[in-house]
Amino acid sequence: MPVITITLIEGYEADFKSSLCKTLGNVAKTYTGAPPDGVTVMVNEVKAENYMRAGLHRQTGPPPLDARDIVKTFLTAMQQSDLDASKKYLHENFEMTFPGSVTMQRLEELIDWAKHRYQSIGKQYERFDRVFEEENSIVYCYGTLEGKWLDGSSFSGIRFIDRFVVQDGKLLNQQVWNDLAETRT
Amino acid sequence: MPVITITLIEGYEADFKSSLCKTLGNVAKTYTGAPPDGVTVMVNEVKAENYMRAGLHRQTGPPPLDARDIVKTFLTAMQQSDLDASKKYLHENFEMTFPGSVTMQRLEELIDWAKHRYQSIGKQYERFDRVFEEENSIVYCYGTLEGKWLDGSSFSGIRFIDRFVVQDGKLLNQQVWNDLAETRT
Amino acid sequence: MPVITITLIEGYEADFKSSLCKTLGNVAKTYTGAPPDGVTVMVNEVKAENYMRAGLHRQTGPPPLDARDIVKTFLTAMQQSDLDASKKYLHENFEMTFPGSVTMQRLEELIDWAKHRYQSIGKQYERFDRVFEEENSIVYCYGTLEGKWLDGSSFSGIRFIDRFVVQDGKLLNQQVWNDLAETRT
Amino acid sequence: MPVITITLIEGYEADFKSSLCKTLGNVAKTYTGAPPDGVTVMVNEVKAENYMRAGLHRQTGPPPLDARDIVKTFLTAMQQSDLDASKKYLHENFEMTFPGSVTMQRLEELIDWAKHRYQSIGKQYERFDRVFEEENSIVYCYGTLEGKWLDGSSFSGIRFIDRFVVQDGKLLNQQVWNDLAETRT
Amino acid sequence: MPVITITLIEGYEADFKSSLCKTLGNVAKTYTGAPPDGVTVMVNEVKAENYMRAGLHRQTGPPPLDARDIVKTFLTAMQQSDLDASKKYLHENFEMTFPGSVTMQRLEELIDWAKHRYQSIGKQYERFDRVFEEENSIVYCYGTLEGKWLDGSSFSGIRFIDRFVVQDGKLLNQQVWNDLAETRT
Amino acid sequence: MPVITITLIEGYEADFKSSLCKTLGNVAKTYTGAPPDGVTVMVNEVKAENYMRAGLHRQTGPPPLDARDIVKTFLTAMQQSDLDASKKYLHENFEMTFPGSVTMQRLEELIDWAKHRYQSIGKQYERFDRVFEEENSIVYCYGTLEGKWLDGSSFSGIRFIDRFVVQDGKLLNQQVWNDLAETRT
Repeated sequence: MPVITITLIEGYEADFKSSLCKTLGNVAKTYTGAPPDGVTVMVNEVKAENYMRAGLHRQTGPPPLDARDIVKTFLTAMQQSDLDASKKYLHENFEMTFPGSVTMQRLEELIDWAKHRYQSIGKQYERFDRVFEEENSIVYCYGTLEGKWLDGSSFSGIRFIDRFVVQDGKLLNQQVWNDLAETRT
Repeated sequence: MPVITITLIEGYEADFKSSLCKTLGNVAKTYTGAPPDGVTVMVNEVKAENYMRAGLHRQTGPPPLDARDIVKTFLTAMQQSDLDASKKYLHENFEMTFPGSVTMQRLEELIDWAKHRYQSIGKQYERFDRVFEEENSIVYCYGTLEGKWLDGSSFSGIRFIDRFVVQDGKLLNQQVWNDLAETRT
Repeated sequence: MPVITITLIEGYEADFKSSLCKTLGNVAKTYTGAPPDGVTVMVNEVKAENYMRAGLHRQTGPPPLDARDIVKTFLTAMQQSDLDASKKYLHENFEMTFPGSVTMQRLEELIDWAKHRYQSIGKQYERFDRVFEEENSIVYCYGTLEGKWLDGSSFSGIRFIDRFVVQDGKLLNQQVWNDLAETRT
Repeated sequence: MPVITITLIEGYEADFKSSLCKTLGNVAKTYTGAPPDGVTVMVNEVKAENYMRAGLHRQTGPPPLDARDIVKTFLTAMQQSDLDASKKYLHENFEMTFPGSVTMQRLEELIDWAKHRYQSIGKQYERFDRVFEEENSIVYCYGTLEGKWLDGSSFSGIRFIDRFVVQDGKLLNQQVWNDLAETRT
Repeated sequence: MPVITITLIEGYEADFKSSLCKTLGNVAKTYTGAPPDGVTVMVNEVKAENYMRAGLHRQTGPPPLDARDIVKTFLTAMQQSDLDASKKYLHENFEMTFPGSVTMQRLEELIDWAKHRYQSIGKQYERFDRVFEEENSIVYCYGTLEGKWLDGSSFSGIRFIDRFVVQDGKLLNQQVWNDLAETRT
Repeated sequence: MPVITITLIEGYEADFKSSLCKTLGNVAKTYTGAPPDGVTVMVNEVKAENYMRAGLHRQTGPPPLDARDIVKTFLTAMQQSDLDASKKYLHENFEMTFPGSVTMQRLEELIDWAKHRYQSIGKQYERFDRVFEEENSIVYCYGTLEGKWLDGSSFSGIRFIDRFVVQDGKLLNQQVWNDLAETRT
């Protein structure tokens, strides 16, 4: 039964609108429990000259990046040990927490800390989830780790999960859990 | 700039509508990057007699429970070792995965497995996050564990995170990560 | 896919609105060929004080009678030989055409004409159909005739169809076809 | 007072939309008794990428043929004794009823039956009316017959009426009444 | 042709909404040149719980006073020489300009100035006009003056016009023109 | 909080729509006292083929001139002593009232009357205000006069105000107040 209309200034890509409709529909469906056929979402596009708020016409710029894509790009840069690229995605108040409640602010700290745990590590991602909040987006991703222990032996298939808080296109917070200790033991 | 109108058959509680508006607004704000003042959400309520789809009027029942509340109720029942109550929330295809990639289907298995890891355990929750999908809701919660090791010594402040897939009001899947092994080592 | 919203000043009965929605939905479905689930019709009711056209608020009176009901009431009065009641439903320009292209203006003419065809007659209605036009409504009804021939013998099950033009709640035109001649022969 | 908005995926012809608006307006005017100036109908066209139901974008194909045009095409083919063309318009459950309650399923039966009634026959149509139903469209047409009796003499101006039930673009039912017997007698 | 819908949180008086509709309709009619019957204005009222902007529900208080009524009340208090009441309507930056480009800030100055022009004065108002601006309302009123000259002789029917700028319910500016000098000469 | 949607047949210039939105927004803001950010105005443009009133599609011609522009053009023509051009803007019932309650119908009368007051006159405009009414537009303009007295001496900076009633693009009424007498004295 929910019929949603969202009015936007024209200019967004079809994929963007499709994803937006999908998400709005999922929200409405989840809240109301309506059957799929009962959920209709429509985008009403108006020219910028046909929309006025506070007495001013508005322009749309490119929409913000999907927080999941920001996270993915950061993770890829980290995987490639490209610290400069990685740092571009960090909020000035960035903080990360790793297993054992180890809290760090700088990527260099992380690298030092990791040296005592494994020679190398890589991530296979199973899934990225996004949570919509008023100020931030939260991204969860999980999958498995593979790499080499300090003694040179290999590991793989070790479960991990990351939780990121993304604000204004930057990572504000990263929390990491994994089964490395479980497995190492 | 996004102006969202959602038409609902009347009868929903104010809190429900407020939460729905908030979430729809968060989605629109996140997608478009509009400033807060630019996001308007309105609920257009119609009587059941004023709404017809496929030639039929529709009735609204009580909306489904928030998946976070389902998870919370389940976790409380588990905390209280109330297996009967806990099982009511399990989907017939329920599966859970615990640190070390231990996969189980039945709560009794979990209890047996846990006996070899700690005498008792409790959870302090920091936060519950909800992800909206077409068929399921996904709930993440994280916080810290406290309890007694097998040798009787106490532990607390050990980080954990759970990921639940909720379908039709039942838990379909639970995945657990925590720092127990990290700490125990 | 068609989503229809009709704004009405509040005050109409639920049955009226339901019938209106059904008809609008049937029209949209027929025109577009949309599947039933794709046709949504909503009535948006506004208070008279919230509606203004040409600078004036408007009031709704009781809606006009369904032209099919006008026809039914007329036919019932005719069946009961209640000429006074029947005449109340006739437009001042009423004209009727009977088998053999016999055209008459007054019910008395019809009665005289019928005297030479049968002693008595009654109608069993199978169905009433309504056609929506800008100025008029057109009503078709068909079914079977039963009665007594002039020689006193009985007849029944003889097919007939009537076509009425209804304007401003009055019958403007009636056309009658039937198998009486076919059967009598 | 009724203001109707119908949202359609864009792509329909102007004539199609004009006819749809006209019919929706006629329905609203007939139901409410509003004055002509009080009936406004607007088509709100959205791109397919701006419409989503059940999580899916929809495409519009060409709209179904007007049931009156289907009937006209069938009647023309019959007039031209083009049985093959005529049969294309018949539903597999087609049934027709002619004066005297003669019921037939196949056009060949009709031709045989007619041979005993007249040498040839043609129809002049005065009008086609369409009734909108949920599953079917009903078409009425009437006018006059002209042709040659079995004895070779001519006839013309004999009233007839046909009633067709059209389903999924095919004729499901035809009922025929006329004054042939009246006149022949 | 213009169809205007204004969505308001419910709670406004019928007279308020009627006046608002009238003014919006006049604006639309003046801009477009549409015939009266072509201008439709509808108020869509939503409960406060059904409206959210910037993530917050909004409440409506009593609407601001009509600037014409503020001017009228001020003028009445002045007529009654009630300086205390009159001053309540003055903005802290109030300035007034009288014939001869005499500019004053305080009502006492005006009274002193007037003492040299007439013994007493009163106003008959013919009309109040209101102009809508983004920050202010502008009110024009005109009519005739009557009173006594300094020599005790009477005058009446002398044309005047006032222009007021009203901001946040206070008079920011008053400009006065009249024919006193013309007549006095 | 007010959200205004105005549906127009497409074809208006961006400036026209912008001005219309601004004025509608100012009206809504003034009536409700909403903060600027709370006032949204949207133009919903439909093709002529998508709009039907009273069963007819409508066309939009060029919108009427802004009454302020009509007044400005008239005043410019008067300033240039172009009587023929000036007269084109006069309604057949035009009447003007000048200081001293002098009422005239023809521009020639005005010129004769003025000859006895000054040799020449010009206007500097400070501002034009427009009032929206159902049938007419009212325009106020004010500023200062400059010119030569009958004795050849110059004057300038003398305040004036004009009030015009504009109907169907013509001036129906002009009222003039100024400080000429005040200054001359």
